Amino acid sequence: MISMKAPASRKSEMGTVCIFGTGDFGRSLGMRLLQSGYRVVFGSRVPKSSTLLPQGSEVMTHAEAAKEAQVIFVTVQREHYDFLTSLTPILQGKVLVDVSNNLKKGLYPQSNAEYLSSLVPGAAVVKAFNTISAWALQSGGLDANRQVYVCGDQPEAKQAVVDVAHSLGLTALDRGSLRAAGEVEDIPLELFPLWRLPLGIATGLTAFFFFYLLIRDVIYARVEKGTDISYRIIISLANKVFPIVSLVMLSLCYLPGVIAAFVQLYNGTKYRRFPDWLDRWMRCRKQLGLLALGFAVLHVLYTCVISIRYNVKHQNNADLIAQIKNNETSELDLTEAWGTDSFLTLGILGFALYLLLGITSIPSVGSSLNWREFRFVQSKLGHLTLLVCTAHGLLYGWNKFLKVSTYKWYTPPGFMLCLVIPCSVLVLKMIVILPCVDRPLTRIRQGWERKRRVVSHEKDILDSQF
Amino acid sequence: MISMKAPASRKSEMGTVCIFGTGDFGRSLGMRLLQSGYRVVFGSRVPKSSTLLPQGSEVMTHAEAAKEAQVIFVTVQREHYDFLTSLTPILQGKVLVDVSNNLKKGLYPQSNAEYLSSLVPGAAVVKAFNTISAWALQSGGLDANRQVYVCGDQPEAKQAVVDVAHSLGLTALDRGSLRAAGEVEDIPLELFPLWRLPLGIATGLTAFFFFYLLIRDVIYARVEKGTDISYRIIISLANKVFPIVSLVMLSLCYLPGVIAAFVQLYNGTKYRRFPDWLDRWMRCRKQLGLLALGFAVLHVLYTCVISIRYNVKHQNNADLIAQIKNNETSELDLTEAWGTDSFLTLGILGFALYLLLGITSIPSVGSSLNWREFRFVQSKLGHLTLLVCTAHGLLYGWNKFLKVSTYKWYTPPGFMLCLVIPCSVLVLKMIVILPCVDRPLTRIRQGWERKRRVVSHEKDILDSQF
Amino acid sequence: MISMKAPASRKSEMGTVCIFGTGDFGRSLGMRLLQSGYRVVFGSRVPKSSTLLPQGSEVMTHAEAAKEAQVIFVTVQREHYDFLTSLTPILQGKVLVDVSNNLKKGLYPQSNAEYLSSLVPGAAVVKAFNTISAWALQSGGLDANRQVYVCGDQPEAKQAVVDVAHSLGLTALDRGSLRAAGEVEDIPLELFPLWRLPLGIATGLTAFFFFYLLIRDVIYARVEKGTDISYRIIISLANKVFPIVSLVMLSLCYLPGVIAAFVQLYNGTKYRRFPDWLDRWMRCRKQLGLLALGFAVLHVLYTCVISIRYNVKHQNNADLIAQIKNNETSELDLTEAWGTDSFLTLGILGFALYLLLGITSIPSVGSSLNWREFRFVQSKLGHLTLLVCTAHGLLYGWNKFLKVSTYKWYTPPGFMLCLVIPCSVLVLKMIVILPCVDRPLTRIRQGWERKRRVVSHEKDILDSQF
Repeated sequence: MISMKAPASRKSEMGTVCIFGTGDFGRSLGMRLLQSGYRVVFGSRVPKSSTLLPQGSEVMTHAEAAKEAQVIFVTVQREHYDFLTSLTPILQGKVLVDVSNNLKKGLYPQSNAEYLSSLVPGAAVVKAFNTISAWALQSGGLDANRQVYVCGDQPEAKQAVVDVAHSLGLTALDRGSLRAAGEVEDIPLELFPLWRLPLGIATGLTAFFFFYLLIRDVIYARVEKGTDISYRIIISLANKVFPIVSLVMLSLCYLPGVIAAFVQLYNGTKYRRFPDWLDRWMRCRKQLGLLALGFAVLHVLYTCVISIRYNVKHQNNADLIAQIKNNETSELDLTEAWGTDSFLTLGILGFALYLLLGITSIPSVGSSLNWREFRFVQSKLGHLTLLVCTAHGLLYGWNKFLKVSTYKWYTPPGFMLCLVIPCSVLVLKMIVILPCVDRPLTRIRQGWERKRRVVSHEKDILDSQF
Repeated sequence: MISMKAPASRKSEMGTVCIFGTGDFGRSLGMRLLQSGYRVVFGSRVPKSSTLLPQGSEVMTHAEAAKEAQVIFVTVQREHYDFLTSLTPILQGKVLVDVSNNLKKGLYPQSNAEYLSSLVPGAAVVKAFNTISAWALQSGGLDANRQVYVCGDQPEAKQAVVDVAHSLGLTALDRGSLRAAGEVEDIPLELFPLWRLPLGIATGLTAFFFFYLLIRDVIYARVEKGTDISYRIIISLANKVFPIVSLVMLSLCYLPGVIAAFVQLYNGTKYRRFPDWLDRWMRCRKQLGLLALGFAVLHVLYTCVISIRYNVKHQNNADLIAQIKNNETSELDLTEAWGTDSFLTLGILGFALYLLLGITSIPSVGSSLNWREFRFVQSKLGHLTLLVCTAHGLLYGWNKFLKVSTYKWYTPPGFMLCLVIPCSVLVLKMIVILPCVDRPLTRIRQGWERKRRVVSHEKDILDSQF
Repeated sequence: MISMKAPASRKSEMGTVCIFGTGDFGRSLGMRLLQSGYRVVFGSRVPKSSTLLPQGSEVMTHAEAAKEAQVIFVTVQREHYDFLTSLTPILQGKVLVDVSNNLKKGLYPQSNAEYLSSLVPGAAVVKAFNTISAWALQSGGLDANRQVYVCGDQPEAKQAVVDVAHSLGLTALDRGSLRAAGEVEDIPLELFPLWRLPLGIATGLTAFFFFYLLIRDVIYARVEKGTDISYRIIISLANKVFPIVSLVMLSLCYLPGVIAAFVQLYNGTKYRRFPDWLDRWMRCRKQLGLLALGFAVLHVLYTCVISIRYNVKHQNNADLIAQIKNNETSELDLTEAWGTDSFLTLGILGFALYLLLGITSIPSVGSSLNWREFRFVQSKLGHLTLLVCTAHGLLYGWNKFLKVSTYKWYTPPGFMLCLVIPCSVLVLKMIVILPCVDRPLTRIRQGWERKRRVVSHEKDILDSQF
């Protein structure tokens, strides 16, 4: 709101913020606070102004600085927190913001913020700003994470810190009491937590299918025919493993959705929690899908270089020479022409749909869609992608299913194995969208409950909108 | 701003918010409000605390809850609004926020919010939050739409709701009076409204060129030569249709711009509205361009698989065998070598530019450009892309324009037809950037007017900056 | 915060904003201000309401309008600023917001805002909103830049403007005193400032390698063998130049990082500024990397069309015919098969990693990563990409390094030249991650200093966290 008051009163209105410590983070924070109209006071053991400190800030002793402000950012390392005990009387009732991080998880039994709180019992310690880097504060750019996680035991103290975050253009999320500080301190140490399970699945599937195909293709040829085709491992084999893993992971991305539907139908309500494994699975669907896309990209790239590979060209030439020598003439097999072209077309269309799904996973693209559009893309287009890619896989082996020679050592080829899950998902999905199954499911998802446990409670839920 | 007051006063300062209904949306909203420092009171028919309700909230009867707060979110379905009539005296002067959505458009003659307003005439009904999903409120993530559309008849009531939205980290856009509620309720039911026209154009063009080429290629071969080349439909034909549609749609993306320039030149002012069709066309240019890119991607993928197609390999081998049998030796045709390589190079460069345009259409990329950069990319690079792609098309037929055999059944081939619009756009654009046309146009766009209708009005416009 | 006061008081609380000028920008700004709950008063020479002005706004003479508000947006062009001198007494103590831009840099010796300030000395002139377009204000969309740069000499006046920006949903960044107005006015005139250096490097490298390879390949063939292979310029030569430039630029992207590490080790502190050239280089690493990705994309596309090129097919056929005539039979060379396949695989994996790096450069993707994840992707994955791509380059020439025929006219082939920088970067990086080098470097980056210049200062820095 525009200040209608005399300009002079404005500065004090934004208030004074104190920063203990003059390192990178403290200085960057000070600069940004000054830019947002705060008065900034640095607390330092050696309170003399330095050229490194942002222009417009003041430097004092810790005690003097603490007296000036209600909110104090502690930007010194945990090992140096001890000096704060001597300031206990001055810090009484102040908001102490612990912004510290550790180098790795589990270094200390107690979180830094809780340790700080135990050192200065009279102060309201708030854990916040630890996910924001000095660089993000300096650049103010779009590239950096701007989410501040706040936790603490005094709501008013938390609110004061949230207000500072907001006026710096950051967004704040409350994470509860100070007991959550350990978790908050671990956030910047997390390395793609949601990607861990999908990456594990991808690695497992890749390893399994690699060795399965290695045995069936390369070792079989070695043992049964005595030929060395180990050079095929690098591209030919990889280009069988990648599409297989991609298709399996894409189907794993849509499997939990249909399982959840059946669980809800079985429970007769949506107000019962899913089992933990299903919940965990559902939360990493996006990551599963993106990994599947990655494997699909590799498959496409590998396919594009097929015709410039030395051994492919060599084989083609050898076939042609043999054909000429034997004076054979091969007629164009129209079934083969239709089959291979359909196979390639389905692959291309499937990949294009895959790319579309991937693009809508870009946060700023996804956030420009409304809920119905997002659901349309992720559910309708997603299942269409799975259908097209599964058809691509089925067409690959359209004339191989019934041949005995396909089943080397009595094992099915890789593409048959991999089609099991996608086909199951598609069949289950088709059951779910049958009118007789879809109708009760839609009602359940709108809040209806089959088993009325407490009549009054259910009545209230009927009132609810979503 | 940092509260300089005693901490205890903070909670009441953020205020109390009341929520009628305890469904998914109500609970998610309550949780988020609590996190942002509000006191949350649920109004329920059966006011007993449930484990499902967010910790820290209170549950009361509707009447009690309504008394506690100035702003009341009504998160029950329209069918259950009747109970509110009994609360009319208590709701007098309160802000009632209607967050409801319908399952489809046009279910009721009156919007939900207007219906609510008619039930409780003394309350200030505000339509808002209907575009926000329970899931978005829970996750607080970047992936979801965070735009709240607000409409209502009392500005103060709207402002109170806007303030709540802001403190939840959402952005709010005023959509006017409560009469706009119907429109706002339809927003979450929209499915890609701006994509409808471009998708229609793409479908029409694809269908037309598909049948045109089907007749000229496949049916012509059948009728005139008696050969069955229907297997070419899937890839060869598609790979002719896709680039044609892509090029036509790219040019349709830049045609309205030059038409608008000529309209402005004709009108002699920029202060006259464009005809509706032009306005509508201009608003979906981005979607036209992205669809064109989609077709270009398909064209590239189809082109990449050419050499691994069965019938292409078969044809090549057949040609080679014939050549060997007849003991022919073909010399390298340098013109052909230059021609085909230039054709491919233009295609590749055009596609790379296309991709660049597509990338800058990602919201977060586009928003990191300043206005001049955005214009440079979308106008300069856009027209360059059109130029390169048109040259790619022209080079495809460089030696076919004058051959009689090209004009089967007296019809021009598809690529000639499709070059008409791009070439026209390029010629018109070249006229627009001629100094003698560009100079008056620039003046018009800076606010100058040729026909001075009202002298005083024009004087004022001269004062204006942009 | 929710207003607990009587609704009537709300409108005046948001305040009145005055706009001088009724052009596109003034009207768009007015509309948006009205939507955000402000009262809007237009100042005009001819104060009669126009249908063009947003509904709900008022029009008055400049003097009347100025009296109504504390903040006045001046949306007239610099050439028309003179009329403001007559309003000097009324504008005393008011906040005048200069939103103007110029058509090009350096048109006037003094910035528009400083000129305005000299005309109306008693007013608090603030430069702001010049980076926001009328279109962005109207659409309120995600696609446009929403960063407002603010500068001025009175902090309170700046804060008032920042508050307006915030309530319009824009973000504001303080750029200091009014002396910075010239810089701020140049921002919308900048055209990809950070891309200039990388584009220059790319152009230089492309030109150098193009002529180098032209001489070694085409001119050498002409002079020494008398054959004309100039048709190879368009694709074969380009497809050698693009990967070379891509690899060199990728390594230039990681070279400044290792140089910086050695500079820090040499200085024994991180608190000394890097030399200017290094600083400038480091700031455009992202752009270097994205250009390198662009060249890699071209390389991939060129590689994909190899087998459909006329002269490649002609050459293959000629080879095959010669082979048949001479009745040769070529055995499959297993080393060659392994070599070429490994070469292709490394290229594909390198490109996939490249793409991953590019995707995380999309602002909204990057901002969803925490600091550790961002560093992991940009540093670990980045160096892995460089390693894989360098290996791809080394494998390309694995059997050519020792052949004399490789060194035409005593010059090394292009790929050897281009491998020098990537290999150096990788060797230097390997030195940096050796434990004996990494340990002191990590300590320096945590704030430790070797040369203790001022003991007391250093003590304080030890206190600092980051």
